[in-house]
Amino acid sequence: MASDTGPIKGNAVIGQSGGPTAVINASLVGAIKGLRNNDAVGSILGMRHGVRGLTQDNFADLTNIEDQTLDQLLRTPSAALGSTRDKPDRDYCKRILQACERHNIRYFFYIGGNDSSDTCRIVNELSNEEGYELRCFHIPKTVDNDLMTNDHTPGFPSAARFVAKAHMADSRDNASIPGIKINIVMGRHAGFLTAASALARRDADDGPHLVYVPETAFDLERFVDDVAKVYDRLGRCQIAVSEGIQDKDGQSIGAMLIQGETDAHGNVQLSGSGALGDQLANVLKTRLTPSGGKPPRVRADTLGYLQRCYPDASPIDISEAQGAGQYAAEIASKGDLDGSISIVRLNDEPYEAGFRRVELSDVAAKTKHMPDEFLKGTNDVSEAFLDYCRPLVGELPTFARL
Amino acid sequence: MASDTGPIKGNAVIGQSGGPTAVINASLVGAIKGLRNNDAVGSILGMRHGVRGLTQDNFADLTNIEDQTLDQLLRTPSAALGSTRDKPDRDYCKRILQACERHNIRYFFYIGGNDSSDTCRIVNELSNEEGYELRCFHIPKTVDNDLMTNDHTPGFPSAARFVAKAHMADSRDNASIPGIKINIVMGRHAGFLTAASALARRDADDGPHLVYVPETAFDLERFVDDVAKVYDRLGRCQIAVSEGIQDKDGQSIGAMLIQGETDAHGNVQLSGSGALGDQLANVLKTRLTPSGGKPPRVRADTLGYLQRCYPDASPIDISEAQGAGQYAAEIASKGDLDGSISIVRLNDEPYEAGFRRVELSDVAAKTKHMPDEFLKGTNDVSEAFLDYCRPLVGELPTFARL
Repeated sequence: MASDTGPIKGNAVIGQSGGPTAVINASLVGAIKGLRNNDAVGSILGMRHGVRGLTQDNFADLTNIEDQTLDQLLRTPSAALGSTRDKPDRDYCKRILQACERHNIRYFFYIGGNDSSDTCRIVNELSNEEGYELRCFHIPKTVDNDLMTNDHTPGFPSAARFVAKAHMADSRDNASIPGIKINIVMGRHAGFLTAASALARRDADDGPHLVYVPETAFDLERFVDDVAKVYDRLGRCQIAVSEGIQDKDGQSIGAMLIQGETDAHGNVQLSGSGALGDQLANVLKTRLTPSGGKPPRVRADTLGYLQRCYPDASPIDISEAQGAGQYAAEIASKGDLDGSISIVRLNDEPYEAGFRRVELSDVAAKTKHMPDEFLKGTNDVSEAFLDYCRPLVGELPTFARL
Repeated sequence: MASDTGPIKGNAVIGQSGGPTAVINASLVGAIKGLRNNDAVGSILGMRHGVRGLTQDNFADLTNIEDQTLDQLLRTPSAALGSTRDKPDRDYCKRILQACERHNIRYFFYIGGNDSSDTCRIVNELSNEEGYELRCFHIPKTVDNDLMTNDHTPGFPSAARFVAKAHMADSRDNASIPGIKINIVMGRHAGFLTAASALARRDADDGPHLVYVPETAFDLERFVDDVAKVYDRLGRCQIAVSEGIQDKDGQSIGAMLIQGETDAHGNVQLSGSGALGDQLANVLKTRLTPSGGKPPRVRADTLGYLQRCYPDASPIDISEAQGAGQYAAEIASKGDLDGSISIVRLNDEPYEAGFRRVELSDVAAKTKHMPDEFLKGTNDVSEAFLDYCRPLVGELPTFARL
């Protein structure tokens, strides 16, 4: 509900949710900076472990945080306030709103993915229904890069940087001691992060030689055939595979191979296990062993949680994550009542981007996939994707060849 | 066999062997630099894929390599000449010697681990027996840090840097979304690299909370008990586990869990698979589930090949790897006939190191283990180890806490 008499006075709360990233703390820094010079804002509170901490009155007081700590936070990976996997329903959101009322919170910022924007949406609805004036803002974050309305999402560029550098180095390793190498990359539904592996290519015949994303149906027979062709030609093959690859019926290949636990959203655990890579490696070893001969050297690495936390963030990502937080904080007290912040690309070369407010419902609980123009055949990505991704990841190293 | 009339004239050959590292090319650069201003040395040849390439007359001509390429090579991970897993016996070494004779090679440099120094030792013996004057030098390299006579080994500091940074960031991730996190670290027989994870600690209760190395017998019951204690106290637990952990009878825990291939040395493949981590995670999930309750959140990452190739080498490691190569090249033409180069620590604070020549037989086919003073109980490393390791890895980041 809007106030007609200038910014509403009260306290602010900021939370972090979902899988952490290398720059989710930069968005926290941005929000704090955007709030602390605003006279309408009293205390700036941090939720400990997201909305779970909020409902339990568990806060970090960020009102007088020192500049040195903010500077360090810009380069501190993972959620410094703690995160949560809770996905609040309407009843949970009522308790969130009660906590806001209890602490006279009038500014609510939640940094996270599409589930977090859905939480903002429900809390915002409830506050409107109750007539409790609350500015609800979602600040985007996800290494999966799968939020609607965003050119790309804070957290993705740094993860993409790690994946690209990892494939650059691993491709040299694979050339040193030739064989077949599978790298499993994060991304349950969207292939952007796996696709970023292709930034590793410099020379002809550089890896990754094959790239498999969830947007293209995965066929095990075709996979074996693809690998055999590259291996026959080069004597080696580096393969980037998304953890979220699925067959033509939408069945997760990982889930079919893994007897594992499910999370609160009913998803099978894919990260934090090497099972998919090991299983694909076993298939290749078996299928590519020449009759009466030795199996090829096949190795699988699952890049794991380092993709979202390795302390080598993309400079643009740090800057944009901070900017998104600050933009949310600033417009929250300038009459905009609620929304999600989106990154807009303004120019390709030189790269330039800005922010805009979109409706929470445009982002909430939706997933963006790689568009067709970013795909090439069934096992690669296009130049258009590389042009899109290249400016985001920062400078990559140059390796010598002999 | 020695010449009494100054340095013997002829060509030089340099090879790289075994698992690559982030700085094995820096040793190549050092050897080239040490050779190219020496009038006794004609062509400088690089073996393609180690002694395998040498015996097949497969060379890269490095005689007139450009300075810019050398500069890039210093920061290029993995073996730029190609590596090999071949472990030559006496017959194979005879073919190596024949290749040297064929190409008038009088200076032979092999960058590698203890198997590579054994190759040097055999080739050197054969050349002495035949009366073919050949200077044979082994230049140390291994992320495992397990070469005798060395304070530490080129390649280890960069891998240790990666493992430490990975654990720093992953510990923040683990604190963000609490649970039990296992990280499997390279090191088949020696625990140095796994131990380096402990450099990640800054504050009390920082991970890794438990560190398991091959030098201490691994007991599954005690492991479960160790983890339960930390998890009860902190609600989370980060664990660094060497891929080479073994039980009290010396049986590899990984090998017991993995039905895998063996390499030319009869070793079971441990790297390039997530099986050990997944298996330990399953044990913890099963054993730590409260009666009638939910299993704890347990995740396992196998840090994999990035440990030896991620392009973020320790500056000291680059400098020492280059220095070892250059030292070998320089003494080879100054009357020293054969040997292995060792790193000697001259001073702790400020850190200072130098090189010396040791006998090939002092290093060949031997393995150094962590001394008792580097261990603490059955699940940690000592301050003495941290003091030893800290100066090697370069500056580590500083993270903010809220």
